[in-house]
Amino acid sequence: MSSVIGNNIKLSVFGESHGTAVGCVIDGLPAGIELDFDGINKEMQRRAPGRDKSSTPRKEDDIPEILTGVLNGKTTGAPLAAVIRNNNTKSGDYENLMKVPRPSHSDYPAFVKFKGNNDVRGGGHFSARLTAPIVFAGAIAKQILREKGITVGAHIKKIGSACDEGFDFNDISKELLLGLSSKNFSVINEKSEEKMRGEIEKYRLEGNSVGGEIECAVIGLPVGVGGNIFDTVEGRISSFIFGVPAVKGIQFGLGFGFAEQNGAAVNDEYGIKDGKIALLSNNNGGVLGGMTNGAPIVFSVAMKPTPSISIPQKSVNLQTMENEELVIKGRHDPCVAVRAVPVIEAAAALAILDIIL
Amino acid sequence: MSSVIGNNIKLSVFGESHGTAVGCVIDGLPAGIELDFDGINKEMQRRAPGRDKSSTPRKEDDIPEILTGVLNGKTTGAPLAAVIRNNNTKSGDYENLMKVPRPSHSDYPAFVKFKGNNDVRGGGHFSARLTAPIVFAGAIAKQILREKGITVGAHIKKIGSACDEGFDFNDISKELLLGLSSKNFSVINEKSEEKMRGEIEKYRLEGNSVGGEIECAVIGLPVGVGGNIFDTVEGRISSFIFGVPAVKGIQFGLGFGFAEQNGAAVNDEYGIKDGKIALLSNNNGGVLGGMTNGAPIVFSVAMKPTPSISIPQKSVNLQTMENEELVIKGRHDPCVAVRAVPVIEAAAALAILDIIL
Amino acid sequence: MSSVIGNNIKLSVFGESHGTAVGCVIDGLPAGIELDFDGINKEMQRRAPGRDKSSTPRKEDDIPEILTGVLNGKTTGAPLAAVIRNNNTKSGDYENLMKVPRPSHSDYPAFVKFKGNNDVRGGGHFSARLTAPIVFAGAIAKQILREKGITVGAHIKKIGSACDEGFDFNDISKELLLGLSSKNFSVINEKSEEKMRGEIEKYRLEGNSVGGEIECAVIGLPVGVGGNIFDTVEGRISSFIFGVPAVKGIQFGLGFGFAEQNGAAVNDEYGIKDGKIALLSNNNGGVLGGMTNGAPIVFSVAMKPTPSISIPQKSVNLQTMENEELVIKGRHDPCVAVRAVPVIEAAAALAILDIIL
Amino acid sequence: MSSVIGNNIKLSVFGESHGTAVGCVIDGLPAGIELDFDGINKEMQRRAPGRDKSSTPRKEDDIPEILTGVLNGKTTGAPLAAVIRNNNTKSGDYENLMKVPRPSHSDYPAFVKFKGNNDVRGGGHFSARLTAPIVFAGAIAKQILREKGITVGAHIKKIGSACDEGFDFNDISKELLLGLSSKNFSVINEKSEEKMRGEIEKYRLEGNSVGGEIECAVIGLPVGVGGNIFDTVEGRISSFIFGVPAVKGIQFGLGFGFAEQNGAAVNDEYGIKDGKIALLSNNNGGVLGGMTNGAPIVFSVAMKPTPSISIPQKSVNLQTMENEELVIKGRHDPCVAVRAVPVIEAAAALAILDIIL
Repeated sequence: MSSVIGNNIKLSVFGESHGTAVGCVIDGLPAGIELDFDGINKEMQRRAPGRDKSSTPRKEDDIPEILTGVLNGKTTGAPLAAVIRNNNTKSGDYENLMKVPRPSHSDYPAFVKFKGNNDVRGGGHFSARLTAPIVFAGAIAKQILREKGITVGAHIKKIGSACDEGFDFNDISKELLLGLSSKNFSVINEKSEEKMRGEIEKYRLEGNSVGGEIECAVIGLPVGVGGNIFDTVEGRISSFIFGVPAVKGIQFGLGFGFAEQNGAAVNDEYGIKDGKIALLSNNNGGVLGGMTNGAPIVFSVAMKPTPSISIPQKSVNLQTMENEELVIKGRHDPCVAVRAVPVIEAAAALAILDIIL
Repeated sequence: MSSVIGNNIKLSVFGESHGTAVGCVIDGLPAGIELDFDGINKEMQRRAPGRDKSSTPRKEDDIPEILTGVLNGKTTGAPLAAVIRNNNTKSGDYENLMKVPRPSHSDYPAFVKFKGNNDVRGGGHFSARLTAPIVFAGAIAKQILREKGITVGAHIKKIGSACDEGFDFNDISKELLLGLSSKNFSVINEKSEEKMRGEIEKYRLEGNSVGGEIECAVIGLPVGVGGNIFDTVEGRISSFIFGVPAVKGIQFGLGFGFAEQNGAAVNDEYGIKDGKIALLSNNNGGVLGGMTNGAPIVFSVAMKPTPSISIPQKSVNLQTMENEELVIKGRHDPCVAVRAVPVIEAAAALAILDIIL
Repeated sequence: MSSVIGNNIKLSVFGESHGTAVGCVIDGLPAGIELDFDGINKEMQRRAPGRDKSSTPRKEDDIPEILTGVLNGKTTGAPLAAVIRNNNTKSGDYENLMKVPRPSHSDYPAFVKFKGNNDVRGGGHFSARLTAPIVFAGAIAKQILREKGITVGAHIKKIGSACDEGFDFNDISKELLLGLSSKNFSVINEKSEEKMRGEIEKYRLEGNSVGGEIECAVIGLPVGVGGNIFDTVEGRISSFIFGVPAVKGIQFGLGFGFAEQNGAAVNDEYGIKDGKIALLSNNNGGVLGGMTNGAPIVFSVAMKPTPSISIPQKSVNLQTMENEELVIKGRHDPCVAVRAVPVIEAAAALAILDIIL
Repeated sequence: MSSVIGNNIKLSVFGESHGTAVGCVIDGLPAGIELDFDGINKEMQRRAPGRDKSSTPRKEDDIPEILTGVLNGKTTGAPLAAVIRNNNTKSGDYENLMKVPRPSHSDYPAFVKFKGNNDVRGGGHFSARLTAPIVFAGAIAKQILREKGITVGAHIKKIGSACDEGFDFNDISKELLLGLSSKNFSVINEKSEEKMRGEIEKYRLEGNSVGGEIECAVIGLPVGVGGNIFDTVEGRISSFIFGVPAVKGIQFGLGFGFAEQNGAAVNDEYGIKDGKIALLSNNNGGVLGGMTNGAPIVFSVAMKPTPSISIPQKSVNLQTMENEELVIKGRHDPCVAVRAVPVIEAAAALAILDIIL
C-alpha cells in the first residue's frame, strides 16, 4: 500500500481531492538545479481544471507552495516538499456517494479495503486531482532532463472515433515535442483538435464521457540505459504510468500491433549512417532487451472514459444492500485524456530521471 | 540494473542461455508449504523447448535442483534456491554475433551497456531461457494461491491472423483456467490451435517468425486487494510481466479498446445478486482505483515475433563499423507466444502472491 | 541519498532548520485509527526546544498541521502528511558558517557533497530539528502499538559522569515505560536527574556540551517477530535509529559487554513458568537470530556531545583555504540526550510498527 | 522476512548449515571486472572452519562454484550466482535440538515463527555457515573497492580479558589494513594473539565459549559520500553488519565513549595540511551527518560468545512443555570473533560498494 515510487529519486505523493491539499516530496534531486518556476507553472496550468469545456468546471489556482529543498531558487539536495492547497471544493455533492458507489470508480473496493474510513469525497486519494503533484514533480524532472539533452513530449492520439496522426517512430524532433508540450490541447495535426473537441462535446452534452489514447516520446537518451530482467525501461515507465488514474494499458512501439506481425517485417535492422550505428526502423519503440537502443522511446497509453457521468446508472446501497439508481452530480471532465497529456509526460519524465540518475 | 523483484517475496533470477545454468532464489515464501513436485514439473515441461515444431529444436530436461529452503518436501521459510543446468548448448552458432548484433535483440544495447563483457551466446542473461526459473517460481506461487482459492490461467488469444475466442470477462470458471494450464498449446476453442499452428508453420518454413497475444485471468481474489497510487494491481502485475522477454504491451480489461468507448457503454455497474454486491460487467478487468473489485482480473499481453530469424537481415559490424548482412543460424522458436503462456501465468501468479502476502 | 525509510510503512521526512518548515509523509498507516491528538502534542512538547536550561533557548510551538490522510479524526489509509512551520529562526547567526565549517558537524561533507548548494543555516536538512517530524510520526506509531499491547519507553542512562540505573532486562513493566514517556527528563531513579542536570549545567556555563547514552525498551511483542539474515530486528531498529542526528552507536542487551563474557555466564536459559516458556535471563535484549524471543527488547544508544559549542575552535575557511578560528554563536542544546529520549522512542516505535505491519 | 540486501547491488544469500549448500546471488556488479580467484579463495580460507583449535573441528573445503555472471574470468554485468556445497555435515548431532531449543540461539523464536518447519540442524538458515557466501561476495566487493583506491581491514580488538591495541583513528595505512586482511588471526600487535588464544583455549577446555570485539576500518573514500537522514553511512553499514550472526552492537569512532565526553574534548577540528583540508582528530570515525569526511571510517562490533557450549544448560522441551537439561554435542567454535574478522570486512566492503556504486 504505497504512494511512494522510485529507486534513485523517491516521489511520495499525498492528498485528497476535497481535503486540505495535495502535494508531494521528491527525494534525491541533484543539488544546484536552478528551478524554472515559469516552466513549472506552465505545466501546472496545462493540467489545471476549469479552463474550457473539455474539462471539469471546478477552477483551481494550482500554485504549489515549495516548503523545503530549495534555497535562492536552487535545489539544495535535501527533499523538496510542495503543497498545493485545495480551494474550490464542493463536498456537498458527494454525500450520497458514501453509501452508493459510483460504477467504474475506486469507491467500492476502497470502501472494503479501508473499512469505510477512506475519504470518498471526489474520490479522495484516488482522485485525478492527485496528478497535480505528479505534474509538479514531472516539470522539475523535465527540466533536469532537458539540461542533459533529453526531451519528453506527448499528444492525444485518439478520442473516441477522432484520431491524430501518430509519431513517426524513427524521426521525432525536439521541436515537435516541445511544441506539443507547450499546447493545452496537444495534437500533431492541428485539424485533429477540432474533430476531438467535437467528440468530447457530443458526449458532454449527453452527460456522458469518452476515452482516449495518448502517445508519448522521449528523445536524447544514450544507448544502453536500463537494466536487467526486472528493471527494464518498459517496466520502469509502466510503474510510473499506472500511477495515473484511468490508465488501463500501455504499449511500446508497435505494441499490440506486433501480435499480427512477422519478424522479417518488423525487426529493426541496423545500418551505418554518418559513421554511426543507426536503426533503420523503430518498431520496438526505442527499447530492446529492456535497454535503450538510441532510437526515440515511443509508447502509448489507453485511458478509460471518466467514470463519473450524469446519466443515471445502476448501483447498490452499501448500507441497505439494495439496488439503487445513481445520478452523479459533481463536476467532471467529459474526457480525461486532454488534461492527462502533461501528466503522462510528467510520469515519463520522472521514470526516465529515476532510471538515469 | 536488477534481476530482483518483489516486495513481500523477493525473486532473484540468474543465469545465461549458454552458460552453466539458470536459476532463482525465492525469498519470503511461507514456511510449511508441501511442494507439489509433479505440478512443478508439469509447468516446467509446458515451457521447455524441443517438444514440437512450434518451438526451438534445442532440447533441455529443465529439471530444477532445489538447493535450499525445502526440508522433507516442505518449505522451511528460508530462501528457496533452485538451479537448472544447461545441458544442450551449441555455442559455436553464436560466435559471429559478438561482432554483428541481431536486429531487434538485446545484443547492441547490451554491448554498449556492458562494454562488450556480456555473454552474448544465445542472448546470455537476456535470453528467453531465463523464463525457466520464472516458471519454476511461478509454479510454487500458483500452488500457494490455489490453497487460498485463487486460480491463474492464460491462453493464446492471437498469433498472426489466427485468433482464439476471448475470455468472457465476467464469467471465468476455475475449470476453464485449470484446463488451459494443463495444455501445452493453450486455447479456449480447440479449433484455434489448428489455425494458429498453421500460422506458425507458414512462418517457420520461410525462416521467419510471428508475434502473438496472450490473455490471462486470475479468479478468487477478495475485494480491496492492491494499493494506493503507485502500488496498483495493474502496476504490480506489469512490473513482473515486463520481466518476460518479448513482451511489448499490457492492457487490463478493455485496455486500448477503452479509447473508442463512452462511459455509459463501458462503466461497470453494480447490482445485488444472491444478497451480495456483484458487477454487471467487467470492462475494467477486475481492477478499479488499482484495487481488486471482486471480478476476475483479466489482462492481455503483446508479444513480438522472435527476433531471431534465418532470413538475411541488415546489420553492422561493431568492430569495422561497416554494414554487414546477417544470417542467424542457431535454433529458435518461430513463435514465442506458445511457450510463453506458462511464463505469463507464472509472472501473474508471482505478482499476485507478492501483493497478497 | 534518501530521507525515506521503511518497508511496510514509508516515512518520508523533509525540511530544514531555518527554512519554511519541517514535516513528513507517513504512507501505509492502517485506516480507521482514531488519532490521540493530546498524546501527539505531549510527545511534541517533550522534544520541543526552549523549555529549560538543558535545551536551546530557541522557542518553537511545534504544532503539526495535518494536511492529508485524516478525516473526522481518523486515519483514512491514504498517506498522512504533516507540516510543522519554523517560526523562530535567527539565520543571521549562521552567515559565517557558509565559509567556515563547524567541527564535528555535517557542514564540511555537506558542502562537498552538495557543491555549496545545501542550506547550511542551523545545519539545514541535517539539523536535529528534523527530529520533530520523527517524533510526530512516532507518536502515531506508539498509539497503534499501544492498541496491540506493545509499549515503548526510554530513559537517559548516562550524561557525562552521571548515570541512571539501568533497566532490569528481564522485568520491565508497562507502568515504568509509560512513566518514563510522560516525563520531560526521563530517568528511572529520580535522583539521577539532579546529577545529570548538574553535569549539563557545568558544561553549559563553560560554553561546552556533553554526550549521553539513552536506553530504550519495547515490551509486548510476540515471539518470532523479525526476519532472516538481513532483516533482523536489530538491523531494522538500527536503520531507524541512525536517522537520528548525533547517534554514534547502538547495542542490544549486553552489547559491547558481551566481548568480555563467556557463554555459560550470559546464555539466556529457558524454563517453564506458569505453563509457558520463559527466559531465565535476557542478556540478548529480547532478540535471537534476529527474531523476538518474548523477552523485552532492550537496546542503548550512544549520543555524542552537541558539536556546536561557543568555545573557540580550529577550523578552516573554505574560500581562502586558510586556517580560521571559529566561535559559534547561535542557540544550542548543551546536551542533546535529554530531548533525544522521545526521538529514540519514536524511532523505535516506527521501526517496530514497520516490522509488525 | 528477507535475506536480500542492498540498493545498488542486491545480495541474496541462501542455504542451511546442514542442507545441500549455501550460496548467494550478487546483482548489480559492474561488467568487465577480472576476478581475482586467488584473492577470493584466501578470504574463503580465512573464514573456513577446521583450521585450528580456536574454531570448530568441522572441516569444509568452501570452494564456491560460480554458476553465472562470469565469462572468461570477467564479470558480465549479469547476476553472479555462486554455490558452496556442504560436505561435512553430521546431522545426527542435532536431532534432540528440534525438541529442546539451545539457549541464546535462534532455535526457539524460529520454531515459533516457522511453526516447526525450519531446518534446525546446525541452526539451519541462521547458522554462521551463512557467512561463507557473505565472505565470497565481500571478496569481490573488496577487489572492486581496491581498484578505486579503497581498502578495508579489521582486527580482533578484544576477546574476553585479552585486548589488542586499537586503531589510531586518524592514521591508518593501507599496509596495516592489507596486513590484517592477510592473517588468519588478525591482530595489530602480534603479542595479542597469544593472549587471545590463551583466553579461547581456557574456555574451550571447559566446554565454554567467549565473546569478542572486532574493529574495522575503511580508508580511501572521498569526502561527501553517503546520504540524507535515513541513508547514512552508519546506518547502511549497520544494516549489513547486523546480518552477521552473533553481532550485538556497533559503534562508530568513540561510539559509546562519547557519552562521557564533552564537545571541546572530542570535536574533530579542521586545519589546512599541504594545501588541503584535514581533520585534526577523528573521534567521529570518519562520518559526519551520515557522510564521509575524508578521515578513515572506523567502527567496532560486539560479538557474543558462541551460544553452543557443551556445559549442561537449562532449557525446555517444546513438546512436553517441561524443563529439560540440555547438553549440546555437535562441533562449535569456542570463539566466533576469530573467524568473524573476514566476515566483518566482507560486510563492510559490501556496504561501502553498495553506497558508492
